[in-house]
Amino acid sequence: MNALDSTHDPERRAWVPSAQAPDSDFPIQNLPLGVFSRGGATPRGGVAIGDQILDLRAALDAGLVSGPAAEAAAEPGLNRLMAMGRGASRDLRRQVSDLLAEGSAAADQAQALLVPMGEAQMHLPCTIANFSDFMVSRDHSWRLGALKDALAPLPPAFDSLPVAYHSRASSVRVSGEPVVRPNGQWKRREGVHFGPTEALDFELELAIWLAGENALGTPVPMSRAPERLFGYGLLNDWSARDIQRWEMPPLGPFLAKSLSTSVSPWIVTAEALLPFAIPSAERGEGVQPPLPYLDSTENRARGGLSIAMEVWLLTPRMKAAGGGPARLTATDFATMAWTPAQMVTHHASNGCNLLPGDLLGSGTCSGPGEGSEACMAELILRGPIELPNGETRRFLEDGDEVIFRARAHAPGAASIGFGECRAVILPAPPWPAE
Amino acid sequence: MNALDSTHDPERRAWVPSAQAPDSDFPIQNLPLGVFSRGGATPRGGVAIGDQILDLRAALDAGLVSGPAAEAAAEPGLNRLMAMGRGASRDLRRQVSDLLAEGSAAADQAQALLVPMGEAQMHLPCTIANFSDFMVSRDHSWRLGALKDALAPLPPAFDSLPVAYHSRASSVRVSGEPVVRPNGQWKRREGVHFGPTEALDFELELAIWLAGENALGTPVPMSRAPERLFGYGLLNDWSARDIQRWEMPPLGPFLAKSLSTSVSPWIVTAEALLPFAIPSAERGEGVQPPLPYLDSTENRARGGLSIAMEVWLLTPRMKAAGGGPARLTATDFATMAWTPAQMVTHHASNGCNLLPGDLLGSGTCSGPGEGSEACMAELILRGPIELPNGETRRFLEDGDEVIFRARAHAPGAASIGFGECRAVILPAPPWPAE
Repeated sequence: MNALDSTHDPERRAWVPSAQAPDSDFPIQNLPLGVFSRGGATPRGGVAIGDQILDLRAALDAGLVSGPAAEAAAEPGLNRLMAMGRGASRDLRRQVSDLLAEGSAAADQAQALLVPMGEAQMHLPCTIANFSDFMVSRDHSWRLGALKDALAPLPPAFDSLPVAYHSRASSVRVSGEPVVRPNGQWKRREGVHFGPTEALDFELELAIWLAGENALGTPVPMSRAPERLFGYGLLNDWSARDIQRWEMPPLGPFLAKSLSTSVSPWIVTAEALLPFAIPSAERGEGVQPPLPYLDSTENRARGGLSIAMEVWLLTPRMKAAGGGPARLTATDFATMAWTPAQMVTHHASNGCNLLPGDLLGSGTCSGPGEGSEACMAELILRGPIELPNGETRRFLEDGDEVIFRARAHAPGAASIGFGECRAVILPAPPWPAE
Repeated sequence: MNALDSTHDPERRAWVPSAQAPDSDFPIQNLPLGVFSRGGATPRGGVAIGDQILDLRAALDAGLVSGPAAEAAAEPGLNRLMAMGRGASRDLRRQVSDLLAEGSAAADQAQALLVPMGEAQMHLPCTIANFSDFMVSRDHSWRLGALKDALAPLPPAFDSLPVAYHSRASSVRVSGEPVVRPNGQWKRREGVHFGPTEALDFELELAIWLAGENALGTPVPMSRAPERLFGYGLLNDWSARDIQRWEMPPLGPFLAKSLSTSVSPWIVTAEALLPFAIPSAERGEGVQPPLPYLDSTENRARGGLSIAMEVWLLTPRMKAAGGGPARLTATDFATMAWTPAQMVTHHASNGCNLLPGDLLGSGTCSGPGEGSEACMAELILRGPIELPNGETRRFLEDGDEVIFRARAHAPGAASIGFGECRAVILPAPPWPAE
């Protein structure tokens, strides 16, 4: 499962010029999978390479890739590829890497099958069967928990299990689709109020896409969890904090989260991230080791992931002035208290059946340091957010655009990126006439 | 939307003898929809009539029913019929009622298309897009909330909105499929423990199946909520109380609920339940009226439903002795604090898109009186549950079978039933070897 091969070779170069740029998110060592369309044609699977997309449908028809994995990956959603397990996507990765590598005999043929990203519309990579959202950042949990109970900021079970809740699958949208400010209910001093949220926030999360399936009633031990991890992306778990505070007790977040969830279109496969595996995060002093069902030597050695993650904000005033976005957050997935494999094993520990196309959110990936707070509710604990152009924010305003980026670096490996997860906030709709 | 027609006429009788029995759940005034198969054939839509099922696929092929609604209802899942909205199923109901009514010219032809329920295997009525679970019984919330905070037993927002959480769609199963006792984690005096739950409970709920679709970002006002209500069934929201208590703060129930959810196979349509509409429940003294977005004259007059609901328990010892089950609970949906229409409007108030095939659970339908407690966690507040054969229970034991039944009665209307929602508890699996 963990063997690096020629597809990870940092010396390998694609014949696509834009993939050779050192700051490209999509060098030949990455090869993330997504679903795209052009000019109203049927969506199909593709692989990002530099600023181009290899059309897998066309590559399959031209005989440049072949086999069951390539056939499944060419479909308008990746669910069938995900159902085939990680082995299938590994096979496809090898074929595509060889096709796109300098010296490939089929380079001329493949060149004609590249679609410029600027001409493509991206879609959700698969039908999302179920969406569960975790909360595995100790720093996020601590900062927000301390607002409610300074003496016991962390949930009681935080160190014993990866805390999570079921979230809403139907409202997950691909990066680029705008987010409508939700109406909702919360309590004000003068009484219960209903109207547009006044505390719309982002949450920077890792999206974890699942492969394979366990039958209902059948747990997934830690030894088999890694093969359930298909790949990763970025996820914005938009949150309306005023609605959330009011509706949460005791059953958890509901409408504060289901308003919309944005995911980046490209799935960086677990194979591509192998060079960035790190030991699971150290547990704090006095914190017990995980119970045996959540523990394994493999997970301790390489269950974690080193991924640098950022949040950028582009306000209407910045846009009008022709400027770029301002960075709000720089954090790393490395500090998360629980690993993706532990999330899978815990989730299925009651026998819950996890399906191909299931989506897990990691929870807000805040780190310990100043500037690593991965949502506005945490950032404003230090006061209003001051932007370089003199604007300030406490929460998001209409027209604001939030942009997530991420990149994995490791010694001896070619750095790879995740592309963007971005969306602009639209005003709340008027309440419909009866 | 609310007009009774000839299909509700209490004098109308089916030519199917078993449908004429006064205690039949499925007289001709009911005509619930489900999906069944026989002898390994492709599942197809059917209508329950007495102890028989009218095969809609066969009836369509024979020209006994026709039109887009009948075509959609004959499919192996009812999602497309649900997508067509309530009007479509109303049209189908009229056709089937006329076909099955005494005096129907096509009775002989239709007789050949009846499948005895004993020979049919029932399936989930549709692909469940999303599953959200509410908590609208004041009595349930109060009894369990008082264990945590005697001074403030109800969630703060209980009287302002129908409290709910996102639940798990993948683990919903049809009545008859066994439920595997889940492993899970909870805290004991001596430390955190992982093993089979020792507090497996049932929760008697109404299943609410949705029709139609609202686009993401587009709320559903109260005036349009009724047309989103496709139909109703029974739902057992199996709950592991030890796991639940430990994992819940602050994000709500997760693995304590996703172990399995059972639903009855027959969807009693909103049309069939029209005679049983009642005013929404009176709000307690001093409780404010709902905010305008959750209020309507129509809802106040007839948003509620009068449905008598029961829980029965059949233990292995009862089975061995050849006896029947013992009744644990008798309650009524009429006392619920929020109506199905209010659940829909609140759920979509943030713009959340509700899909055809979405499932809402009402939450545990406990009433105010002794014996109306609709889960064991409430029942045992009065001490261990004593069964007629001398056995006692605090929570469910392996081999126990839980059976839900429900029936709607109203003056001047033919009484209709829901069929059963039942499942037996299987022992927890050993934890898989690594």
